[in-house]
Amino acid sequence: MTKIPNLKRRHFLIGTAGAATAIATGLPAMAQEKAKALPDYVAWKNADDVIVHTKETIETKRAAQGIELVTPSNSLYVRNNLPAPPEDIVADRDAWEIEFDGVANPTTMTVGQLKTVGVETVVCVLQCSGNGRAFFDHEASGTQWGVGAAGNVIWTGVPVRALVEAMGGASEGMTWLTGTGGEVIPEGIPAETVQVERSVPAELMDRAILAWDMNGEAIPLAHGGPLRLIVPGYYGVNNVKYIKKLAFTAEESPAKIQQTGYRMRPVGEAGDPSQPSMFEMNVKSWITGPLADAATGKVQIHGVAFGGTSAVNKIEVSTDDGATWTEAAFIGPDLGEYAWRPFVLIADLPAGEHVLASRATNAAGDTQPETVEPNERAYGHNGWRAHAVDLTIT
Amino acid sequence: MTKIPNLKRRHFLIGTAGAATAIATGLPAMAQEKAKALPDYVAWKNADDVIVHTKETIETKRAAQGIELVTPSNSLYVRNNLPAPPEDIVADRDAWEIEFDGVANPTTMTVGQLKTVGVETVVCVLQCSGNGRAFFDHEASGTQWGVGAAGNVIWTGVPVRALVEAMGGASEGMTWLTGTGGEVIPEGIPAETVQVERSVPAELMDRAILAWDMNGEAIPLAHGGPLRLIVPGYYGVNNVKYIKKLAFTAEESPAKIQQTGYRMRPVGEAGDPSQPSMFEMNVKSWITGPLADAATGKVQIHGVAFGGTSAVNKIEVSTDDGATWTEAAFIGPDLGEYAWRPFVLIADLPAGEHVLASRATNAAGDTQPETVEPNERAYGHNGWRAHAVDLTIT
Repeated sequence: MTKIPNLKRRHFLIGTAGAATAIATGLPAMAQEKAKALPDYVAWKNADDVIVHTKETIETKRAAQGIELVTPSNSLYVRNNLPAPPEDIVADRDAWEIEFDGVANPTTMTVGQLKTVGVETVVCVLQCSGNGRAFFDHEASGTQWGVGAAGNVIWTGVPVRALVEAMGGASEGMTWLTGTGGEVIPEGIPAETVQVERSVPAELMDRAILAWDMNGEAIPLAHGGPLRLIVPGYYGVNNVKYIKKLAFTAEESPAKIQQTGYRMRPVGEAGDPSQPSMFEMNVKSWITGPLADAATGKVQIHGVAFGGTSAVNKIEVSTDDGATWTEAAFIGPDLGEYAWRPFVLIADLPAGEHVLASRATNAAGDTQPETVEPNERAYGHNGWRAHAVDLTIT
Repeated sequence: MTKIPNLKRRHFLIGTAGAATAIATGLPAMAQEKAKALPDYVAWKNADDVIVHTKETIETKRAAQGIELVTPSNSLYVRNNLPAPPEDIVADRDAWEIEFDGVANPTTMTVGQLKTVGVETVVCVLQCSGNGRAFFDHEASGTQWGVGAAGNVIWTGVPVRALVEAMGGASEGMTWLTGTGGEVIPEGIPAETVQVERSVPAELMDRAILAWDMNGEAIPLAHGGPLRLIVPGYYGVNNVKYIKKLAFTAEESPAKIQQTGYRMRPVGEAGDPSQPSMFEMNVKSWITGPLADAATGKVQIHGVAFGGTSAVNKIEVSTDDGATWTEAAFIGPDLGEYAWRPFVLIADLPAGEHVLASRATNAAGDTQPETVEPNERAYGHNGWRAHAVDLTIT
């Protein structure tokens, strides 16, 4: 391994002080936070596989992501912009109502009624815009996610297109599809300052579903049940939880979370609607193992890769800090263009220190860059160098 | 619906006495057993989604199978031929040892070592040979499974072929691949009378894997962790749990479970090695909903279908007791030839009684038969008529 003096090495350090906690989180020791207990509303999660940052931000450990085709619900990350609504909203799931507007025939339907219109299942990466924030060099506010604000999830629900057709189509001039979350707005606070309401381009109706089922079970409250908007290929924030209204609108939502929040903006600048919104995810991959010292001999280097909105179709692994790359193999069935694919490379590594990196390419020809430009909120990091891990072979 | 007098209607009855429990189990009311609590070793299962027949036989409810692409571990059925070994065998999973024999270079490896040889992920139906036993007319001994001794499961492990190649290939003349389970044999009982040891044709090494991971997590003890032999397309019993030895052998295992058990034999006849063994699964499907009275209007008829050892490629649904059939749609990604596919048909049903049936066809051209011949142990039922369900539209 080439030692580069004075370079802030933000990638995963093994075999040094703090290695034990680093192994758990995939974050440098300095970024560690004190382990917190699981909040009540996610008490059913597997505490061994997650890092509780705050009550509303819970990360999957890098090691737990492993080479898993689908992320089990009990280790899937949680990021809520507002506290989850009370449990009673999932007591009678089929009774949950959603209002539709901006269509020829506006209406309100229950989840039970949605289930008679159509059904589809899509597997897609769910990822927070801030996943990888810890790998930026500037000190951005927000949860210092490593790689674990992402998972590969099975969603089942009704295609939005089928609903829109049943309602006579979208009204003219409506360029946005706007979903409103059912979180309770604290008293005395103007709704638009905290309301979770997000708009995506209206044509996303061809891809989006209103889901009631996640990984084979009714969607847990923490993940947006009884009903969640799923926009495959789009960052997590666009996948509105507890959705109570879906509307075609002429303008983007006036909510702060749409107007100024979740914008890709230069460091130090304020959020503004003219800046790119966190919509489409980019091509990305990372190594999930091995994360601990290994003995000489064959090593199973593995990780996960996805293409964003275009299927991942190539994954390369480097064991020498990016000097040379070898194509690795995807394993398991292909779950579709919005899903991640686990990959593996069995390598024979000599004793010494190695830097393991991965680099994905999608069908559109986009390849992960080595580094990324900083942005104020530290969103969208997909640089391969910062995601690399160190491995000592003894 | 055509009423056929005096025909023993073994399919799922709704809207009659016993409907509440029948809905829960997918079994006729007369076959209901008193609800039992979950045994300690599977206390982590979702009690609402399973029926505890005995400590070693736990069934997934028909309604819980739904249109799920993958069966969540917490609702997957359990069928153990012997009590599970003590929990301490999963305390250090990578230390579990497996002996290999009948190869050029016999050896013993730990799970940790297996992980450096190769890795693959396969999704396949896991199904007990006796799934559907309750639908036979004769009174066969054994658990009266309805449809719930089956699930669609993601397995990750090392391909057996990669191991065999690393060991110099199988020895000459070895026509069987024999796996031995690590269950504890009670004292004073000759091992071969209860030992879980199964042989499958040696060429299955091209398909089999030794799995350490199930549905994204280390295989739970109840499901065969730390290591289980997975033979995709083969009935559950061939997927040896807690596997401690895998050998190429010249003869089938002398164990009772191989010699006389799990044989397809005429009613009243004793088990014999000349009879077909429960190896390859057959093409099969069943409706999983709706299982309760519905209102007039559109109804989402759904279920699951698989091809056995050849991919399912067609699914038909009948709402008139098999008089006419309509092709239904598979939903979600295709997980491979050994996996099941959920299907759906949105139908407009008039008020009245309807008999819903499904009929699958695989790529080899096999279609589910209307009825099946009885066999002593009531194995392998895939007749569509007995799997049908009644639905009352009001």
